[in-house]
Amino acid sequence: MANESTASISDNVVWHRATVTRARREAMNKHRGAILWFTGLSGAGKSTLAHAVEEQLHRMGCRTFVLDGDNVRHGLCGDLGFSAADRAENIRRVGEVAKLFMEAGVIVLTAFISPFREDRNKVRAMVQPGEFIEIYCQCPIEVCEQRDVKGLYKKARTGEIGQFTGVSSAYEPPDAPELTVKTAEMDLQDCVQKVLSVLEVMDI
Amino acid sequence: MANESTASISDNVVWHRATVTRARREAMNKHRGAILWFTGLSGAGKSTLAHAVEEQLHRMGCRTFVLDGDNVRHGLCGDLGFSAADRAENIRRVGEVAKLFMEAGVIVLTAFISPFREDRNKVRAMVQPGEFIEIYCQCPIEVCEQRDVKGLYKKARTGEIGQFTGVSSAYEPPDAPELTVKTAEMDLQDCVQKVLSVLEVMDI
Repeated sequence: MANESTASISDNVVWHRATVTRARREAMNKHRGAILWFTGLSGAGKSTLAHAVEEQLHRMGCRTFVLDGDNVRHGLCGDLGFSAADRAENIRRVGEVAKLFMEAGVIVLTAFISPFREDRNKVRAMVQPGEFIEIYCQCPIEVCEQRDVKGLYKKARTGEIGQFTGVSSAYEPPDAPELTVKTAEMDLQDCVQKVLSVLEVMDI
Repeated sequence: MANESTASISDNVVWHRATVTRARREAMNKHRGAILWFTGLSGAGKSTLAHAVEEQLHRMGCRTFVLDGDNVRHGLCGDLGFSAADRAENIRRVGEVAKLFMEAGVIVLTAFISPFREDRNKVRAMVQPGEFIEIYCQCPIEVCEQRDVKGLYKKARTGEIGQFTGVSSAYEPPDAPELTVKTAEMDLQDCVQKVLSVLEVMDI
């Protein structure tokens, strides 16, 4: 039982609040936290670019993390399907988790088709101006479909997969992304450099 | 359009996979990622202790993050209430996010009542042995209720709040936590030292 001579936890409500602030984390990391939000069709190169950017940032000593279908769709969002409502909820949760990582001082890179402008803009609205950096991976659907790395376009065309972005569901390009990279035309390392240039300009 | 002389993203499917591994992050951070899971009654000192431990870890140069009601209940889990099903889903999501932070090389501290053994054990089962460190903040309900920092016990007793842990809903103590701290009896800094000792023993 607590007495007046010792400061037990329940006597120390003042301690409850966080003392390790975002500013202290960012000072330790020597860079700001931010969200790099990659959007585009399946096969446009979002994950590839995000991981390549992460590799460069890590070599520069930055704290980074990539959120993509591989580590989110089977875990945090394992209860969600691909209906419009579930896709919106998927993006909402990814946005919330990305925000937590950013508050932890991390440069978090998200690689989801995120086809709907409204869903992306809701994430942008969750954070401060300059913290959400939207990167549109622009690639003709013919190129994405020709590659069809995961065989998804084929399944979408035969109807085996429904509500597939670009085939049976819309993709709404960003109105004013911080950056557009034409992934079918540019060398991967040039795309990486464009992203890094934006981070430099935005003082991340 | 891609041609053979340039390596556009869609030609580089080999790049898709993550090259920045957990091992590389941990080497950069000079410590392992881990989940410190604080459990106990409302008012038992979970958040207070978690933040005090984080302060010490940060001073030691560790990368840390606290997940608690303040940054999760209004965001990621803002759609959930306090029914048994919603509480289970809340803990599931917190567990998944904690796992992501751990994979990012961070020591993540979670401070939720998390009253049900089954829910906590599901999180433990998500990760490898030694990665989930359960810390039971043991405190008599009389002490928690006497403090009643948030006025919740009063509301629970009058019935204004239903399904309140310890009053109208069960709390199931851990069977074999990695650590038990009696927060009403011990000085806060002594509690912090006990947690740090466990981390040292577990080679985090």
